[in-house]
Amino acid sequence: MTDIDLILTGGEVLTMNRSFDRFSPGAVAVKGATIEAVGPADQIAASYEADEVVDCSGCAVIPGLVNGHTHTPMTLLRGLADDLRLDVWLMGYMMPVEREFVRPDFCWLGAQLACAEMFRSGITCFGDMYYYEEAVADATAEAGMRGVCAQSVLKFPTPDAASYDEGLRLAHDFVARWVGHNLIVPAIGPHAAYTATAQMLQESTQLALDYDVPIHIHIAETEQEVEEQLERRDQPVVPWVEDQGLFDAKVTAHHCVHLDESQLRILRRHGAGISHNPSSNLKLASGFAPVSRMLALDIPVAIGTDGAASNNDLDMVEEIRLAALLAKGVSDDPTALPARQALAMATRLGAEALHVGDRIGSLEVGKRADVAVVDLERIHLTPRFHRGEDSIYSLLVYSGKSADVLHVLCDGRWMMRDRELLTLDVAELRQRAAKVARRIDKFLTAREERVLNKLVAIGGVSRVETFEVQVKVHLADASRVEALLESEEVPVVRSSRRRQYDTYFLFGDMETSRLRYREDEILARDDEVDAVVYRLTLIGETKEREFPRSVVLSRSRFDAPATHSRRFYREYFQPEEEVKVHKERHRYHFRYGGTDFALNLDRITKPQLPGIYLEIKSRTWSAQDAERKAELMGELLDLFDVEDEEIVKAEYVELAVEEDEE
Amino acid sequence: MTDIDLILTGGEVLTMNRSFDRFSPGAVAVKGATIEAVGPADQIAASYEADEVVDCSGCAVIPGLVNGHTHTPMTLLRGLADDLRLDVWLMGYMMPVEREFVRPDFCWLGAQLACAEMFRSGITCFGDMYYYEEAVADATAEAGMRGVCAQSVLKFPTPDAASYDEGLRLAHDFVARWVGHNLIVPAIGPHAAYTATAQMLQESTQLALDYDVPIHIHIAETEQEVEEQLERRDQPVVPWVEDQGLFDAKVTAHHCVHLDESQLRILRRHGAGISHNPSSNLKLASGFAPVSRMLALDIPVAIGTDGAASNNDLDMVEEIRLAALLAKGVSDDPTALPARQALAMATRLGAEALHVGDRIGSLEVGKRADVAVVDLERIHLTPRFHRGEDSIYSLLVYSGKSADVLHVLCDGRWMMRDRELLTLDVAELRQRAAKVARRIDKFLTAREERVLNKLVAIGGVSRVETFEVQVKVHLADASRVEALLESEEVPVVRSSRRRQYDTYFLFGDMETSRLRYREDEILARDDEVDAVVYRLTLIGETKEREFPRSVVLSRSRFDAPATHSRRFYREYFQPEEEVKVHKERHRYHFRYGGTDFALNLDRITKPQLPGIYLEIKSRTWSAQDAERKAELMGELLDLFDVEDEEIVKAEYVELAVEEDEE
Repeated sequence: MTDIDLILTGGEVLTMNRSFDRFSPGAVAVKGATIEAVGPADQIAASYEADEVVDCSGCAVIPGLVNGHTHTPMTLLRGLADDLRLDVWLMGYMMPVEREFVRPDFCWLGAQLACAEMFRSGITCFGDMYYYEEAVADATAEAGMRGVCAQSVLKFPTPDAASYDEGLRLAHDFVARWVGHNLIVPAIGPHAAYTATAQMLQESTQLALDYDVPIHIHIAETEQEVEEQLERRDQPVVPWVEDQGLFDAKVTAHHCVHLDESQLRILRRHGAGISHNPSSNLKLASGFAPVSRMLALDIPVAIGTDGAASNNDLDMVEEIRLAALLAKGVSDDPTALPARQALAMATRLGAEALHVGDRIGSLEVGKRADVAVVDLERIHLTPRFHRGEDSIYSLLVYSGKSADVLHVLCDGRWMMRDRELLTLDVAELRQRAAKVARRIDKFLTAREERVLNKLVAIGGVSRVETFEVQVKVHLADASRVEALLESEEVPVVRSSRRRQYDTYFLFGDMETSRLRYREDEILARDDEVDAVVYRLTLIGETKEREFPRSVVLSRSRFDAPATHSRRFYREYFQPEEEVKVHKERHRYHFRYGGTDFALNLDRITKPQLPGIYLEIKSRTWSAQDAERKAELMGELLDLFDVEDEEIVKAEYVELAVEEDEE
Repeated sequence: MTDIDLILTGGEVLTMNRSFDRFSPGAVAVKGATIEAVGPADQIAASYEADEVVDCSGCAVIPGLVNGHTHTPMTLLRGLADDLRLDVWLMGYMMPVEREFVRPDFCWLGAQLACAEMFRSGITCFGDMYYYEEAVADATAEAGMRGVCAQSVLKFPTPDAASYDEGLRLAHDFVARWVGHNLIVPAIGPHAAYTATAQMLQESTQLALDYDVPIHIHIAETEQEVEEQLERRDQPVVPWVEDQGLFDAKVTAHHCVHLDESQLRILRRHGAGISHNPSSNLKLASGFAPVSRMLALDIPVAIGTDGAASNNDLDMVEEIRLAALLAKGVSDDPTALPARQALAMATRLGAEALHVGDRIGSLEVGKRADVAVVDLERIHLTPRFHRGEDSIYSLLVYSGKSADVLHVLCDGRWMMRDRELLTLDVAELRQRAAKVARRIDKFLTAREERVLNKLVAIGGVSRVETFEVQVKVHLADASRVEALLESEEVPVVRSSRRRQYDTYFLFGDMETSRLRYREDEILARDDEVDAVVYRLTLIGETKEREFPRSVVLSRSRFDAPATHSRRFYREYFQPEEEVKVHKERHRYHFRYGGTDFALNLDRITKPQLPGIYLEIKSRTWSAQDAERKAELMGELLDLFDVEDEEIVKAEYVELAVEEDEE
């Protein structure tokens, strides 16, 4: 007789190992954090003596479930905004709220709340990717949960990093501190190809290789991403990412909705794992991932809930069922993704996809004791058939609910007994979460409800990425600029002339929301109108950062084709004030210092303002890049002989309001 | 102060009426079976005094959910067979088990079990269609549940009726007994167009109109159904059904997966309702119903779980979520089927689709008191946002679970309090269900496991409908038959000559399973082989009914193209015995008495049997039709001068075995 700590006995033990061994009645023997033995109940009873013996008769004993992909802190954003277009949801709600609220304490609280919810659906390990991942790891380890925690890195400013260099530094520190931890596997999370530069991916890879930690990345989640990638880089997502060397590291690729056979084979060749997130993909209408094909190629595919903001829960049992059902519907084949395979995705394959298959994912000797005990004696699991080999999997997957999970063991420790959580103070967490929700409600109500919601309500709102470095100058006339534009120092690539009739709808505090209706007449050489474009633009806080010489970094806005008349918008939005700005614009695109710039020479005709306004602008992605461009702009201002007193900080609408008030 | 029976107070009351009125804190006042008042909690408190006041703070108070479509007795077949092709699932498992087990007590038990499960997910009304619907209605009324119960009518034999005439008689008696019942709305259930004759639909309609009760019918569930309908009737399903007058009655059309705009508009014009069954449609890979379009056309669309054999549960909360998610994925539009509309489908629209919208579906004065109280203070419902008008719907639909339903009231009576069922003995039901499951397990194991499962496992099995009336005769020679076939009395439409090499694999009890491998050489005029067809056929019980002169009604079998060699099948199935039958067959198709018949003149060459065997066959659909054809066959036997002693009851394989044993 060997002395051990715990025996779970009498249940139907589904090992979920490669040969899907089952024992009924079976038992699992646990010593410390490790599975000591698995087998028929009588054999285990004859060989081991344990401090604690738990009767699991009438239950299934399965490996703790693996949630392949989530953003735990976003649990605090559950139900904040639903049934919206992806861009509206992301740019209109998620990002503004994240910018305002995401701090370490927010991430800690969200992760703890997520752990509570996840334990209750039998999850004992999850793949996470978010900001302040340090706080997520803290919260997870405190909860006693296992997590592969990836620190996000993006090429544009995030709540925790102003640039990707800063994000990478954060990731480095985070990984260095947590590598080798018992529960937490730290990881690097270059968010996606479309939010990365080549260099950013290369540096992320190097970091992952240095510490032998995994990389998490979103791949081909939406069709838009795929199309933009092709247009911008003339290469599909996966080969481009491959070219940056990313797959030299242990990669988990999230979503992989729009991948063709060649790209899937690249993932397979490099031993990458995939997470499939059916609820999220449906809810955001991202598309249908080719899951059956991935599995046929023997790629380990995990099932993920994604964040609670796009699901809207972290219920693995629900997610397994949906994965199994959806695969059939999509492939027009009711034999696709049978129940047993679906459960394997949520256990062994999931662990392999997260590159922790050596430690968890099945009930096998030597693996960590991550176990869920599921009550089978429920009305909705009645009756039960025993004839088929797969009946038990079918019962769990197609009829089971997360509420059937009775007990959860993680790393040999009890996390839940009879549905009571043992390591988390649920009441306290709920109270704190409610407080956060109230603050977010208030913030959104105050800041955006009136204009943005109404804009969203009429649809057609699309994302325009406008992190722009820009400066504005007031000149007596355009001659010295025009002269320079004809020189070789600033070679003009193309130019156009326009007459722009802008109507600004103002709503109280001008800093926070202005809606611009623009009629943009594009002129031909003979000054005849060549085309007219109508656009509606919501302008929020515009000054993100200020560089020397009043060069500013401006932030993204909402932008939509104006499909209704100005009168419609006026009546619909009922602005408090309306300001008109008309101008004649000569727009140039030129290169300087290896960089593309746009330059406007504007004559303001309504209100009639003297002189010419010069604007120089350039799009940017990272703080480093912005700094470099701001520096080049300084040089350009010198080149154009601009005096400091010529620089104008106000926007045109502000100038017009001033003019009006005088 | 008015005296009433019950006030539910303090919760967030979602009336789900046409203007989606909400009261928070709100109250619902109930007197007897009826809603007396709905409004703000303080107003109700000021106006009514109740025997019982239930505090619902922290809860949502919603109308009892309406499950648009199910087959309650099939709850006893939950998980019996999954991850199979539709035909294999239906013909291989559902139908054989139904034939064997479906009796009134089975239906009663299944319906009670279903009621228990449904109450637990907040359902208070369902649309049902099955055999022995009388027993379903009994069980439902006893449980205190509301049901629209449709007695199935099919053109072929069912567990409760040998013919459609008998089915209609059953339906008539059932409807007559239950019409006007407080909880049960009896209905007629002509199963589907492909299992109906025109006359059957016309008679069903007349019955529905006579008693002013609804009709339930499956419409365009699968692509196969749609294709077969077009081929057979040269008209799509809905117009054909319309031509039979069916839509003159109050129709609920189930599934409607493959309907085009014209067909949807026919349904709308006639005021038909639809049930959408997302889990079932996915699980059986039936396709994606155009739900958004149906709703845009203002057709009332219910959400249904379908039977637990194809879902595999009766969880409305899960089904609402799936409907909302799936609509987005399929339409590529994340704004499709928003949460509020999805909940409306499961309440008011569902009631309208079942033609009981005047009584239930919303919390409005005068409607029946069918109410579900949902706990909102759960971890997976944390945090909660209040900013958006639709936040509460989003919370319930995207994050809610059936386990959150605390209390259920149906027709003013408590069905569930704090998740305890009050009208059903769950332990007793579970025990009885387990007993049924054991018997089914045993039946299937004994009868079909060895051969059929193996046949299924290699795929390619397809349904062949072979209810055939047939007779076999042994003649000294073919001359008198051939002479007649050249006369005008039995005009031959076409004929062919074949050489058939049959190998029968036998497995123990020959009555129950024989597998026939047939190499069928079709001969050209010059006796050269024109084509060779290989088929694999599983023959079960073949004699369904015997008519005078040994004319028999034979039952459907499984049939598949034989894609492997005979040797493969031999090794794969490992039959206990193998019997060869070779024959030369001259096959004729002729008409007699306005009816198509097939006639075989067979010369058995292995084993060499003397004389000629004459077989006459005709496909049939209803018992009445079978009787008529058996009668015609009697006439034909007279015409061919067949003596009774010439009639052979044995099949060829039996003759061969006899020959072999001699």
